[in-house]
Amino acid sequence: MVVVVEQNATEKDIEGIIRILNDFGFDVHRSTGVNQTVLGAIGVKPDFDTRQIEVLPGVAHAYRITEPYKLASRSFRQEKSVFKFKNCEIGGDSIVVMAGPCSVENEKQIFTIAESVAKAGAKFLRGGAFKPRSSPYAFQGLGEDGLKLMRRAADEFGLLVISEAMDSNQIEVVEKYSDIIQIGARNMQNYNFLRELGKSSKPVLLKRGLSATFEEWLMSAEYILSGGNQQVMMCERGIRTFETATRNTMDISAIPVIHAKSHLPIIADPSHGIGIRDKVIPMARAAVAAGADGIIVEVHNDPDHAKSDGAQSLFPNQFEEMMKQLRVIAEAIGRKIA
Amino acid sequence: MVVVVEQNATEKDIEGIIRILNDFGFDVHRSTGVNQTVLGAIGVKPDFDTRQIEVLPGVAHAYRITEPYKLASRSFRQEKSVFKFKNCEIGGDSIVVMAGPCSVENEKQIFTIAESVAKAGAKFLRGGAFKPRSSPYAFQGLGEDGLKLMRRAADEFGLLVISEAMDSNQIEVVEKYSDIIQIGARNMQNYNFLRELGKSSKPVLLKRGLSATFEEWLMSAEYILSGGNQQVMMCERGIRTFETATRNTMDISAIPVIHAKSHLPIIADPSHGIGIRDKVIPMARAAVAAGADGIIVEVHNDPDHAKSDGAQSLFPNQFEEMMKQLRVIAEAIGRKIA
Amino acid sequence: MVVVVEQNATEKDIEGIIRILNDFGFDVHRSTGVNQTVLGAIGVKPDFDTRQIEVLPGVAHAYRITEPYKLASRSFRQEKSVFKFKNCEIGGDSIVVMAGPCSVENEKQIFTIAESVAKAGAKFLRGGAFKPRSSPYAFQGLGEDGLKLMRRAADEFGLLVISEAMDSNQIEVVEKYSDIIQIGARNMQNYNFLRELGKSSKPVLLKRGLSATFEEWLMSAEYILSGGNQQVMMCERGIRTFETATRNTMDISAIPVIHAKSHLPIIADPSHGIGIRDKVIPMARAAVAAGADGIIVEVHNDPDHAKSDGAQSLFPNQFEEMMKQLRVIAEAIGRKIA
Amino acid sequence: MVVVVEQNATEKDIEGIIRILNDFGFDVHRSTGVNQTVLGAIGVKPDFDTRQIEVLPGVAHAYRITEPYKLASRSFRQEKSVFKFKNCEIGGDSIVVMAGPCSVENEKQIFTIAESVAKAGAKFLRGGAFKPRSSPYAFQGLGEDGLKLMRRAADEFGLLVISEAMDSNQIEVVEKYSDIIQIGARNMQNYNFLRELGKSSKPVLLKRGLSATFEEWLMSAEYILSGGNQQVMMCERGIRTFETATRNTMDISAIPVIHAKSHLPIIADPSHGIGIRDKVIPMARAAVAAGADGIIVEVHNDPDHAKSDGAQSLFPNQFEEMMKQLRVIAEAIGRKIA
Repeated sequence: MVVVVEQNATEKDIEGIIRILNDFGFDVHRSTGVNQTVLGAIGVKPDFDTRQIEVLPGVAHAYRITEPYKLASRSFRQEKSVFKFKNCEIGGDSIVVMAGPCSVENEKQIFTIAESVAKAGAKFLRGGAFKPRSSPYAFQGLGEDGLKLMRRAADEFGLLVISEAMDSNQIEVVEKYSDIIQIGARNMQNYNFLRELGKSSKPVLLKRGLSATFEEWLMSAEYILSGGNQQVMMCERGIRTFETATRNTMDISAIPVIHAKSHLPIIADPSHGIGIRDKVIPMARAAVAAGADGIIVEVHNDPDHAKSDGAQSLFPNQFEEMMKQLRVIAEAIGRKIA
Repeated sequence: MVVVVEQNATEKDIEGIIRILNDFGFDVHRSTGVNQTVLGAIGVKPDFDTRQIEVLPGVAHAYRITEPYKLASRSFRQEKSVFKFKNCEIGGDSIVVMAGPCSVENEKQIFTIAESVAKAGAKFLRGGAFKPRSSPYAFQGLGEDGLKLMRRAADEFGLLVISEAMDSNQIEVVEKYSDIIQIGARNMQNYNFLRELGKSSKPVLLKRGLSATFEEWLMSAEYILSGGNQQVMMCERGIRTFETATRNTMDISAIPVIHAKSHLPIIADPSHGIGIRDKVIPMARAAVAAGADGIIVEVHNDPDHAKSDGAQSLFPNQFEEMMKQLRVIAEAIGRKIA
Repeated sequence: MVVVVEQNATEKDIEGIIRILNDFGFDVHRSTGVNQTVLGAIGVKPDFDTRQIEVLPGVAHAYRITEPYKLASRSFRQEKSVFKFKNCEIGGDSIVVMAGPCSVENEKQIFTIAESVAKAGAKFLRGGAFKPRSSPYAFQGLGEDGLKLMRRAADEFGLLVISEAMDSNQIEVVEKYSDIIQIGARNMQNYNFLRELGKSSKPVLLKRGLSATFEEWLMSAEYILSGGNQQVMMCERGIRTFETATRNTMDISAIPVIHAKSHLPIIADPSHGIGIRDKVIPMARAAVAAGADGIIVEVHNDPDHAKSDGAQSLFPNQFEEMMKQLRVIAEAIGRKIA
Repeated sequence: MVVVVEQNATEKDIEGIIRILNDFGFDVHRSTGVNQTVLGAIGVKPDFDTRQIEVLPGVAHAYRITEPYKLASRSFRQEKSVFKFKNCEIGGDSIVVMAGPCSVENEKQIFTIAESVAKAGAKFLRGGAFKPRSSPYAFQGLGEDGLKLMRRAADEFGLLVISEAMDSNQIEVVEKYSDIIQIGARNMQNYNFLRELGKSSKPVLLKRGLSATFEEWLMSAEYILSGGNQQVMMCERGIRTFETATRNTMDISAIPVIHAKSHLPIIADPSHGIGIRDKVIPMARAAVAAGADGIIVEVHNDPDHAKSDGAQSLFPNQFEEMMKQLRVIAEAIGRKIA
């Protein structure tokens, strides 16, 4: 931490600041310039609340000088993390596509969709069995039955499974049927849950919170990493802005920024990112052009009657068309679709 | 739902829209004006996703015409809810003050603070035993030991206890020692947790999410209410805005707006709301002037060395001064401090 | 500026950083700690773009250590600025109320309203003659004719006039009829205009931009102050947030924060702040309780037929009621309504 | 407008609502369902303030059913607008690149940059002569001298000129030297200025305001169009979000959304969009992949010593590299770089 002292601070103020810093375990290095005194506070407290110092008499500003996360950072691990799966790897040169309905609804639906997305080139079947819904009266998912259906459908067509767990109590059942555990945006700062995910042997896809900063998002990854689970993938799914014409505002800049700050792969979710079917494809193209390591997208065989998120689900033939376009964009930047 | 049809929609488009609406169980009432056809869709689906209709060919707009929450609304219950406690009631004419440290740190700390806030007129002792921290490396609270200390300190000085549970697994232990279960901002949309809180016999204080709208916040209350727990209190604790000079931006307008939309009491948290000690008091005054049913505020005997949130904790003598000012403001609007 | 050097920066990197800093005219003070090198860059460039340094190789962070504004700051002028008018002063102990319609519509309207607000205790008549409208097809105000009507109405009932100028070309005519020139939120960063206002002899009320930070707002005040016009008043009128149930979100915290950072008076506009008639009064009370130096509020004799902003305009009897409540709140904090 | 009446509204309430609607010139079509009465209000007032009706007794909701803009809309003009220039056209199949420094600084600088961007394939030279700066003490541009330099440099290397006017008084001089008049984000709602631009014969590039919605942005375009100037281009340059690691958050979704709502071309500005040099190229790629009609980007021969925005300016060789990548992406989606 760097503490900038006010120009009119007294020597007593400065001593007071140093004493409090020492009390918190910092070593203090004082540097007195002509106009301004600056204190360097050194200690292993990257997450120290700088406001604690800023309110002291005589302090102009207090700045953290190290990132509050460590295991998630590029300085901790300079090469990109690559996670290997049966049918592909994530974080390497090729770009992985995950596709499927918002919710698993019934056997016919999930098998039909699985078949069509597999044929078009998806590697993972996505689908919700436990659904976080803003209304207590809305369809909440099929639960374990839904997971079983997904597993069977995925196995049938050579896909892997990604599905969401909503809290610690659901980790076990999702682990049983799914190859990646998805964490929803509204759970990004559910800390006990993150801690438990740190103990899982399954990779985790961590969606960005609706109004989370990059730093907060990486801190949530840090919770999982520090628990011992090294397989964390970030997922940009749109943030909340003032715009109401779209569901969310997909922050494409997350892709190059997370790649600069962290070694973790980043997947883009254009379905939630924009929320309007006919604009999902341009956003998917943009994400690949910006360097995303994968795309997760909603596809439904009958979106007009979907139990959730029909408005943002692609028809199977649109998904096929999207895959074609993504292949060309991927090549244009020297990558390929897995 | 009101569905406004595009001016150049064909009769086939309109029939298609009506068919889908029927498929979802709506009765449709068609009204054909000179320039525009409007469809009224009636059914018991207040939470229906209007986007599902908006993407259909021929639809200009689709609007929900009822609030998606019911039990939380003023139309469901026109008089304000009042919850009775041993030493006060919340939601009635008098305004309740809850005070204490961010975290319970040790016996001496919590007893010292409990004594001073009780003397100054607080009715509840606040304090965290389970702390949601953005860093996995930060102090996470004393757990059940902290709750025991709080209970004893509160009992000693005639106070009641309010403390946070972070997930379903902590409800039982918090219920055991606390009179109100506090739900943190980051858990406002942790739906399984809300559902479990619906089964608790203890009142719940539901903090507003950092970027939640009033409607989303009331929907989260609806989760708890629909589970059978009628004792829900809303807590405005500041929202995220672009401002970085303050920790959050306290939305005072939440007070009259929630009172208009809902019968539930609303408590204001100026400590988190502004996050800077010397501006907590004016914000507390503003909240009372705007009609808050209570104030929850952080007080610490030694904020410079607090384990968390010292920067926004009042010194005991500041708390005393705040209580004096609040008494005058409360009287000015025909209420009193409990 | 404080420049924190990356831990693995080379000596060559550091020399490069120092050279660029010197090229921009900074004196550099180097402080080498055990783990980290920190450079103090001293020079009279409070507005220097720190990003210019942050992108250099070897730089971890660059922080500004002084506020970018000077004349607007508390450190420049420690006592509050007080501006004297014929019938009151602004910035002193008493709180000034400005009231009137959104737009001047006709003689009868403005005289009726002027009479009623004067009787209830307002000191200024507000009203727009030049209206910034988001639609080119909407009512744009009566122009100079409106200003003439306002002036006559104000004079008749012992009021002063506050009215908006929308650009440099309107300053002269607004100066002619108005005692305070109001600058709208959308013009807060219209820099040429601000510069011209610096040459005016009339006081300026500077509304906060819809998504402006406190610093940006004070920088805009600095433009006017640095042009030679010392009479600047800040006006909080609500910021944009995600909430759609209200027109804007009134940021009451602006009141104590601006008072801490600046010597300039701050006026609150609850009409635009919340935008819904029946919630204007609680917000006005909150603003006074938080320490506002004045209130500017919309009042209309027939709001249901107002040409603009009828939905947020008080009826005259509501204004009277508001004045009564504000008098009690003002007294509660040791002030009075002017 | 559709007005949904409250379920418990009285017949007198409904009559009152209808009377006010009639007073504002609306024809009212009443549709009484079993549970709910809905009023269709028809009239030529697309910009009518629905809040005016929402505050009336008995009103549940009032919704606008037409867009408030007309000339800017796709329904007014279904084919995309294409603007022809000497060396290219904007809005057609090919994608135009505009490049140059943030500010014109001197002859050597602007000639050097013009030469290198022309060689790499830019069609327009960008550069500021009048600079909107948040600090009154910062470099404000060379004014007309800067425009003269740009014109000469552009002519020398076969480029056209795009440069910013900051207010009505600068339109004439910018028109004289520039082929497109650029309007800055902070002036997007400077309505008198927009009205004057409607009288210009030069095309206008309208940057999106920092927190403007798509609708507000198109309304600002409507101001210019309704004044008679049909050559308006939209420019996405990043919006303000909570993120502080980037300067702005570039909203790539603006590209498909504006294309769906309007016939006007849209240009992307990745330099301001992200604000960090080494992330400009991925954002430019994403914009092209999403369908942008052009890219405007900052390039400087010596960004480390630039008078403004050096941190986000590309080195000439980076610009060359960007052009190569954009050519491949453009082809991948069936377009080409002009």
